[in-house]
Amino acid sequence: MHFEFYNPTRLVFGIGNLSKIGEITKKYGSKALIVTGGGSVKRAGIFDRVVTSLHEAGVRFAECSGVEPNPRIDTVKRGAEIARIEQCDVVIALGGGSTMDAAKVMAAALYYDGDPWDMIHDGKKDPYIPQKALPIITVPTLAATGSEMNAYAVITNPKTKVKSFVGAECLYPKVALVDPELTVSVPKKHTAYGICDLITHVTESYFNGVDHTPIQDRFAEGVILAAMEWGPKALADGHDLQARTQVQWASIVALNGWVSAGTNGAFPVHTIEHTLSAYHDIPHAAGLAVVNPAWMRFAARKRPEKFVQFARRIFGIEVKGPEDIAGALQGIDAFEAFLQRIGCPTRFSDLQIDGTLIPQYAKDTLQVVHDENGNLPGRPPMTEADIITVLQSAL
Amino acid sequence: MHFEFYNPTRLVFGIGNLSKIGEITKKYGSKALIVTGGGSVKRAGIFDRVVTSLHEAGVRFAECSGVEPNPRIDTVKRGAEIARIEQCDVVIALGGGSTMDAAKVMAAALYYDGDPWDMIHDGKKDPYIPQKALPIITVPTLAATGSEMNAYAVITNPKTKVKSFVGAECLYPKVALVDPELTVSVPKKHTAYGICDLITHVTESYFNGVDHTPIQDRFAEGVILAAMEWGPKALADGHDLQARTQVQWASIVALNGWVSAGTNGAFPVHTIEHTLSAYHDIPHAAGLAVVNPAWMRFAARKRPEKFVQFARRIFGIEVKGPEDIAGALQGIDAFEAFLQRIGCPTRFSDLQIDGTLIPQYAKDTLQVVHDENGNLPGRPPMTEADIITVLQSAL
Repeated sequence: MHFEFYNPTRLVFGIGNLSKIGEITKKYGSKALIVTGGGSVKRAGIFDRVVTSLHEAGVRFAECSGVEPNPRIDTVKRGAEIARIEQCDVVIALGGGSTMDAAKVMAAALYYDGDPWDMIHDGKKDPYIPQKALPIITVPTLAATGSEMNAYAVITNPKTKVKSFVGAECLYPKVALVDPELTVSVPKKHTAYGICDLITHVTESYFNGVDHTPIQDRFAEGVILAAMEWGPKALADGHDLQARTQVQWASIVALNGWVSAGTNGAFPVHTIEHTLSAYHDIPHAAGLAVVNPAWMRFAARKRPEKFVQFARRIFGIEVKGPEDIAGALQGIDAFEAFLQRIGCPTRFSDLQIDGTLIPQYAKDTLQVVHDENGNLPGRPPMTEADIITVLQSAL
Repeated sequence: MHFEFYNPTRLVFGIGNLSKIGEITKKYGSKALIVTGGGSVKRAGIFDRVVTSLHEAGVRFAECSGVEPNPRIDTVKRGAEIARIEQCDVVIALGGGSTMDAAKVMAAALYYDGDPWDMIHDGKKDPYIPQKALPIITVPTLAATGSEMNAYAVITNPKTKVKSFVGAECLYPKVALVDPELTVSVPKKHTAYGICDLITHVTESYFNGVDHTPIQDRFAEGVILAAMEWGPKALADGHDLQARTQVQWASIVALNGWVSAGTNGAFPVHTIEHTLSAYHDIPHAAGLAVVNPAWMRFAARKRPEKFVQFARRIFGIEVKGPEDIAGALQGIDAFEAFLQRIGCPTRFSDLQIDGTLIPQYAKDTLQVVHDENGNLPGRPPMTEADIITVLQSAL
């Protein structure tokens, strides 16, 4: 274990917290850029509550609405331009992962004269690492990406069909204002996607990390077990606040660095999925639900131990020692069945996507991220042929 | 779950990291106050390595050595005075929990004209919460308190026999520079105390927190299981770097807020123990090892569920449902046996302390910390008679 950990985001967590947005924002600026998505925060009355709270605190605002599910670089530019013209000095991201990701990059783009796409890891040798951003306050309305408490954002370039990430310390939100009550109106499908997304964040470092991280293993398993226990309750009754609370908390710790600290894990499943959603504009987690079980079966055959542990600790499967591939595969089957049970697609056919472009996905994925041998980092590292094999097994 | 979480300390973790101290310190100041304990860092050559690294980075230093195991308020004043006279602009805490705690309060005392004891929660109505401190860099040479990555310090006033804490955001170290190799020369006894200390940090929030914190439960159990697996390996071979690494990592996450986030738990065992070590100047963890099992038996009878879970998940005991007090007690016996096995005292008689002063400990403890009913906060809250009962059961 050899690593650095740093996460200065202040988390304010609890039901009813939304009303604090004005008082919190006031500490960081006097005019906010409120970034929102497709309009659900307006329909649910959340936007109006934010505006009222800001007004009471004497904070003015401008608005950038319409951030799309796979947020595009042009939307980032549009938001940064609004912030510039309106002279905003703080950014409020009010929405799901896409809205938060776009808002983060807008906050940094304001201080960058070049094309903000320069910041995105799309295979270029030296992406520009932003050094400065407006203060960011995240208010998630969906439990999924954990973007509210981390320094990452994922942006899509529809022209080049590349979807990839930027990570920089200046992108850490100053405050993550998390009110699980805001998620009660999230439809079943997106609740399920959120559950899949958060679990996949955890499985990446769990399966791709270095050996000997017993505490991180337990942390990861704890998040998965909680998501599998409380996720279905949130699906059965969207207004179950206890369930919404647990799922939201799980989504935050899944990607705020606590689970992955010291694992130095790669994100092969995410990297492959980003190519899929860049091509087909599918929900990120729908793609993850298809890729992850297929990837797990591939990786388990190469290195069964961790998958055996997963089968045993998550699903209580009685395995026969650390090399029991059949036991490992039984665990993966149980995981895929869970995803199906909560309503996630697990095959390309569920997404109405055929296999025609699979070789192209593999090629594009490696163009965006590869190690010095040209392979996709992870355990094991994947060749172009490996990626094709995995994706074809998910048809 | 209704809480705030904030921890901006940058953790730099890994074997060999000590050589980075100069380069890191340089970012925060040009003259360091190096705070040390009884001399072990000098005997082990660690102090010289720090001085060399500072010299190479062009950082000057002054020194405050001799911080005692239960650090005293006078030592804090002495260190702050040295920092003032020597015009230090950064503090390096090089040692165990006592050294780090004292160094933190020195860093704040420099900016406070009054008596630094004003900051300590000793029962006074409004302790002064420090607002400003010199930048603090912690370099732990012992895996135990987790002070390297939190905002707390525990200080003793030998005159009043009060040992209590201060917590403030300005006390978060800027950097925790953690090099597990520095712990290889820690003697067996103190290695064992460190293991007991870190486990007790975790059991406090585990047993005293609010209901429905499934992720935090798993986090806590993960830390305990790792400490119980790797701790004995570190005891068997002090030079086992893998074991030293795991124990050190466990000690950090045990008290950096990740495990307790959202539990809003109290610290009854610590509060009682602080009175013991204020009276008898025993090692903190030796006192914890005596108080914790006794407290657990008391609390388990009142509220068995969590103790049943502890018995089952930590020791694999086959319990008969959530109300199985016998099963819960079996788990506590197994825990006490573990503490004994690694060489911790678990009875007052092991510490050569008789029960004469028990009523006084109870009274003093409640004077330092009590709720609005005059009881010691925790689950359950404890009356003076309860504290006496618990302590007498540990004779």
